[in-house]
Amino acid sequence: MIGLTLGIVLVLGAILPKASILIFIDVPSFIIVAGGLFASTMVSFDFSKIKDSFQMMTRLMKNANVDMRTDLEVISLFARRVRTGGMLVLDEDIKHLNDEYLRNGLQLAVDGFKTDSLNSILSDEITSEENMSDTAISVLTAMSNFAPAFGMIGTVIGMVLMLQNLSDPEALGAGIAVALLTTLYGSMLSNMLFAPLAGKVTYLAEKDLNRKKMFRVAILSMVEGENPRIMEKKMLIYIEPAERAEYVKHHEGLKIMKARDEKLYKLWKEQQGKEWENLKKILEPG
Amino acid sequence: MIGLTLGIVLVLGAILPKASILIFIDVPSFIIVAGGLFASTMVSFDFSKIKDSFQMMTRLMKNANVDMRTDLEVISLFARRVRTGGMLVLDEDIKHLNDEYLRNGLQLAVDGFKTDSLNSILSDEITSEENMSDTAISVLTAMSNFAPAFGMIGTVIGMVLMLQNLSDPEALGAGIAVALLTTLYGSMLSNMLFAPLAGKVTYLAEKDLNRKKMFRVAILSMVEGENPRIMEKKMLIYIEPAERAEYVKHHEGLKIMKARDEKLYKLWKEQQGKEWENLKKILEPG
Amino acid sequence: MIGLTLGIVLVLGAILPKASILIFIDVPSFIIVAGGLFASTMVSFDFSKIKDSFQMMTRLMKNANVDMRTDLEVISLFARRVRTGGMLVLDEDIKHLNDEYLRNGLQLAVDGFKTDSLNSILSDEITSEENMSDTAISVLTAMSNFAPAFGMIGTVIGMVLMLQNLSDPEALGAGIAVALLTTLYGSMLSNMLFAPLAGKVTYLAEKDLNRKKMFRVAILSMVEGENPRIMEKKMLIYIEPAERAEYVKHHEGLKIMKARDEKLYKLWKEQQGKEWENLKKILEPG
Amino acid sequence: MIGLTLGIVLVLGAILPKASILIFIDVPSFIIVAGGLFASTMVSFDFSKIKDSFQMMTRLMKNANVDMRTDLEVISLFARRVRTGGMLVLDEDIKHLNDEYLRNGLQLAVDGFKTDSLNSILSDEITSEENMSDTAISVLTAMSNFAPAFGMIGTVIGMVLMLQNLSDPEALGAGIAVALLTTLYGSMLSNMLFAPLAGKVTYLAEKDLNRKKMFRVAILSMVEGENPRIMEKKMLIYIEPAERAEYVKHHEGLKIMKARDEKLYKLWKEQQGKEWENLKKILEPG
Amino acid sequence: MIGLTLGIVLVLGAILPKASILIFIDVPSFIIVAGGLFASTMVSFDFSKIKDSFQMMTRLMKNANVDMRTDLEVISLFARRVRTGGMLVLDEDIKHLNDEYLRNGLQLAVDGFKTDSLNSILSDEITSEENMSDTAISVLTAMSNFAPAFGMIGTVIGMVLMLQNLSDPEALGAGIAVALLTTLYGSMLSNMLFAPLAGKVTYLAEKDLNRKKMFRVAILSMVEGENPRIMEKKMLIYIEPAERAEYVKHHEGLKIMKARDEKLYKLWKEQQGKEWENLKKILEPG
Repeated sequence: MIGLTLGIVLVLGAILPKASILIFIDVPSFIIVAGGLFASTMVSFDFSKIKDSFQMMTRLMKNANVDMRTDLEVISLFARRVRTGGMLVLDEDIKHLNDEYLRNGLQLAVDGFKTDSLNSILSDEITSEENMSDTAISVLTAMSNFAPAFGMIGTVIGMVLMLQNLSDPEALGAGIAVALLTTLYGSMLSNMLFAPLAGKVTYLAEKDLNRKKMFRVAILSMVEGENPRIMEKKMLIYIEPAERAEYVKHHEGLKIMKARDEKLYKLWKEQQGKEWENLKKILEPG
Repeated sequence: MIGLTLGIVLVLGAILPKASILIFIDVPSFIIVAGGLFASTMVSFDFSKIKDSFQMMTRLMKNANVDMRTDLEVISLFARRVRTGGMLVLDEDIKHLNDEYLRNGLQLAVDGFKTDSLNSILSDEITSEENMSDTAISVLTAMSNFAPAFGMIGTVIGMVLMLQNLSDPEALGAGIAVALLTTLYGSMLSNMLFAPLAGKVTYLAEKDLNRKKMFRVAILSMVEGENPRIMEKKMLIYIEPAERAEYVKHHEGLKIMKARDEKLYKLWKEQQGKEWENLKKILEPG
Repeated sequence: MIGLTLGIVLVLGAILPKASILIFIDVPSFIIVAGGLFASTMVSFDFSKIKDSFQMMTRLMKNANVDMRTDLEVISLFARRVRTGGMLVLDEDIKHLNDEYLRNGLQLAVDGFKTDSLNSILSDEITSEENMSDTAISVLTAMSNFAPAFGMIGTVIGMVLMLQNLSDPEALGAGIAVALLTTLYGSMLSNMLFAPLAGKVTYLAEKDLNRKKMFRVAILSMVEGENPRIMEKKMLIYIEPAERAEYVKHHEGLKIMKARDEKLYKLWKEQQGKEWENLKKILEPG
Repeated sequence: MIGLTLGIVLVLGAILPKASILIFIDVPSFIIVAGGLFASTMVSFDFSKIKDSFQMMTRLMKNANVDMRTDLEVISLFARRVRTGGMLVLDEDIKHLNDEYLRNGLQLAVDGFKTDSLNSILSDEITSEENMSDTAISVLTAMSNFAPAFGMIGTVIGMVLMLQNLSDPEALGAGIAVALLTTLYGSMLSNMLFAPLAGKVTYLAEKDLNRKKMFRVAILSMVEGENPRIMEKKMLIYIEPAERAEYVKHHEGLKIMKARDEKLYKLWKEQQGKEWENLKKILEPG
Repeated sequence: MIGLTLGIVLVLGAILPKASILIFIDVPSFIIVAGGLFASTMVSFDFSKIKDSFQMMTRLMKNANVDMRTDLEVISLFARRVRTGGMLVLDEDIKHLNDEYLRNGLQLAVDGFKTDSLNSILSDEITSEENMSDTAISVLTAMSNFAPAFGMIGTVIGMVLMLQNLSDPEALGAGIAVALLTTLYGSMLSNMLFAPLAGKVTYLAEKDLNRKKMFRVAILSMVEGENPRIMEKKMLIYIEPAERAEYVKHHEGLKIMKARDEKLYKLWKEQQGKEWENLKKILEPG
């Protein structure tokens, strides 16, 4: 979003000294481009699919800066508590989890679901999200392709309107200018909005699915009663090599596990999804 | 269709205050675009293939809002009746089934076809539909590609005509305007009609094939005399995870199966293909 | 071909009321487009490959309306005759077969080739045809891509010529009109000729290869001395599900095989490649 | 090359009656297109890779008309001589072989290399050529994509130059004409040179690799001391079905092998790479 | 870089005689293109990813001329020293290694890591680099696609600005000229910078990953205590066939290994990454 704002500020900064921004605003032109774009997208996809796509996009944006190593710290803590107190020890804490997938999954585990049915439910939800993110990317790509086409259609409409009424030749320039606005709108919608968003959703959906897969592995490991260290190893596979190396190196140097766990238990509720680097600093003095 | 209508209304609403819609209508221009488009599509594909494609498209459109959970309720009811009364108990009911595939399949089952030959007939029909939907998508994609090309060809023809007869320079503007109309027609046919329809057919054909596969599994399960609960589980795989979860949850809470079955048996004929959510409400009071 | 003719008639019908067709004809413009297109295609492919491609195309066109069920009837008849009289009974009939692949294959079988070497010869010919049809599609696709490029090159040449000699400003319009003709020729060659033909060849080659594979299966089955009914089943796999179902249903109802065979033996020579529906009507009275 | 020449002659023939060819020649315009094209290709690929690509291209062109059946005749002769006299009998003949790969491979065989290490050397060279031809095709495709882009850049540069200096409005036409020349150069370089060459190299490299693979099989077979007839069968797999059938049929009819071998041994040095059809005629009288 | 400079010099050389370079410089036009490009790339990718991509690119450029045969000589020397003195003999030398991957890997080996964990760390780093280079290529390709789009958007903005203020018709030409500059900037950024860089990074990343894989094989072989000759054979697989053949041939002719090793040990620190051909000449007199 910072990128988009900065880009618009730069472009406006380059234009404004020369002319008022008002000459770039023409409501009927915008209606032609947006209306055509909306109609074609509606025919290509179901309305419900389009709505789902945009909801998914906003959800992914919110999770964009999540650090999976913080998840790892918190879930490892949970696993150590489960190891001593059983699954029910989490019953109260679960309600404070921000991530819906993790919260629901752990709730089912606490409710006593067996590994098999739990795995099938958790995997189903991942498949469902994969389908949804594929649809969201298709919708944004289709919009990115339709936008310039309707920009061009609008310009042709504008040219035809103008050329048919050449009573006032002085208005020729202004007429062409207005006709060109739809091309401008179409190109900007495509290149500054839909195409970059399609790229971003591709990237964020992959990241989010990876995180869900890590959660699935962790929940199943807890239900199976595996050693928390083994669970940690399985979860580490989902973290990028560079971050993983840093995490492993840091944990090798740690000794007083118990004191650290107590500190972490106090902090985890407000640290969810935050940078692990900061959490690390708070947990270990100096 | 709502999307298409809304889009056209918006675009017209943006244009009409400025000029009469008549200046956008030119029959010879339309004949050039539509004629060229028609000719090229006819050469690329057989006429019979094109006709089949459009028939398939209209059939898919009609089934667009079918809810597979309603199918599931009805077929489960059938399976429970078959379980007690044998396959022949369906002989009368089958005639009232809307879906041709399900009707023919169950008829063959009632007629006593064995699992193997039944499976081969049902699978053949699915393969045949897959080929037909692939052809339909190819036809629409080809038309979406040819339309702007003939729009451009028409504009070049219009420009040549106009430039050769420059006796009246005042007619220049109107001449260009008319020449541009073919570009407009070509772009609109491509971006408002053929490209979105190709997208829609892709989506609907996948949905319809999935439904047919669910029917195949159900028919074969009945012929094999499997427990209706096992048949239900096999059918559930073809339903989207979110809808499946809702369906399963709802049925877990159900107790008085027999009364519900009787109510459903009275209702199923007019409920085929309707929303399951509504059927659910009618079946369970409060 | 009907499609192409109809398209051209429609386009001409839309243009002719406005101007003479002569203003669209300019031999040097056509030479630029066709010459450039020819040169580039010649460099990209061998001349022999291009010639082979066009020969293959015409051969495929001739077989476009062949009905594989008629082949099935005739070959089944042959197989029944072979079953009683041995392979040599076909020696005379083979010469009247229209299809070269089937004729050569059966001739080799009559000459006493063993299954293994016969299979290798028949398969080689299929591989060779697959390569040839791939090349033919590449050639047509390349021509479809080069044509508009040379149309554009011709227009730029025309514009440069005209702009260098602006002595007579009144000739400006006519000059641009002539320059635009190459763009028109290039676009029409691409969109009305080469692109649709590439689509058609793709479709027809697939159909023809499928037919050859059916012939291979039939010839090998006869040489092996298999039961004609088993051969028929193997051949049916290559026929489209809808047509297959119709054929199978019709043959289930047939009883007096011998009389039918005698009638068919009199007719097959002039029925080869004709519609099976008609053959069926002739064979069975009423 | 004939195709290219013919195409240029046709295009020139269409233009020259109208104007001098000189108006299409503008050195600075050509430098902009060729310079930009050269710079971008140099950044995309190493200079050494580009040089290798063009060397490979010229080598492939020279071998374009080689007939692999002539290779087959010669190598079969060699194999029969090795069968009686041992590998060393070829020591003198090898030096007269035109093809470097075959010459080096046989030299290594004469030098006593074992099958394993010989196979690894011969295969390495084939892999190396595959990489080189892939690079050559990438280079030509990149040049085919860059050329029109720099044509367009040159035209924009020309337009800016001209529009900034509108002191003499009469020079407007000539100015646009010159600006358009870069577009013309870019399109012609792409569509008449680089794109067709990329197609040709793809085709020729495949043919050449196939020939090398046939040589590898032959050399290994000789070293292993296999029967020349078996070697011939293995080599035949690499020849196109149609040519293979003709070759096999011709050799079935041959009887006096010894006399033919002596005649061939006298002729092979000047027949390498020539048409097999001619060689066949020379060897067998009438 | 030489290519880019030469290209720019050629293009400038073709333009400068006609006009001052200043008419091609317009800061607001550049801000529109670069700002839009920057904004869209920022939305499509994370800022950190873009930064990483450019860092990777500069690192790859620096290693562009590395000769892997020099690496092979040096590592073979190391392996021979390890063979006699054990892994610890390298402790001092490692610090002088230029390549970070090789230095870290050997350090871990000296520190006593076992084969398994060493292999997993070394492979992780290769996977991580593969992901990073894929991202870098995506970023450059996206920038290459966005640049011309924003060039076009800028030109439309410029045309609208100019056409709205047609008070001074004499300024028309200059206005169009300025508007065209953004198209020029966009096309040049795409075709002279981003597209060629994407090609170069693809090529260099592949080369660098190949080199890292060779290092991995070498380090693991030393830790396993394999014969240096076997390690050399394993490493040779990663070197191009032509270079490999030359290297192998040269080493077959070598006799006085010990003296050569001593000479090489004195030289290796300043020879890292240099041409092997030169190193070879220095090591062997005349």
